[in-house]
Amino acid sequence: MEVLKVSAKSNPNSVAGALAGVLRETRSAEMQAIGAGAINQAVKSIAIARGFVAPHGVDLICIPAFTDINIGFVK
Amino acid sequence: MEVLKVSAKSNPNSVAGALAGVLRETRSAEMQAIGAGAINQAVKSIAIARGFVAPHGVDLICIPAFTDINIGFVK
Repeated sequence: MEVLKVSAKSNPNSVAGALAGVLRETRSAEMQAIGAGAINQAVKSIAIARGFVAPHGVDLICIPAFTDINIGFVK
Repeated sequence: MEVLKVSAKSNPNSVAGALAGVLRETRSAEMQAIGAGAINQAVKSIAIARGFVAPHGVDLICIPAFTDINIGFVK
């Protein structure tokens, strides 16, 4: 599944457009966000994307979940 | 529909418990959150509540949306 990484500085409209694009091809997408600011932008993106896909008969839903991530260091 | 108001200081476990309780009776609930911190707690609550209701055969989903709110002043 395609993974969209959302940051606190992400533009919700841009993320919504990307999300709608992915959904058009795969019917589902995964979004990853770390921190309150990023979660906020991600949720707004989904609300906006619902409007993008609704005219195509798609009722976009979201399934929040926790996940473990690997953080890499560059020495 | 029952409305749960979530703040940035809400305990996600407590909100998840309340949400699961409401869902047991009504099958759906509305959550309201204002600001990144509150949205963050709300999303975490939903992720936690999914675990609470899953054993009862309920696959909890969420539908993010914007809404208008009325703000009242007390003179």
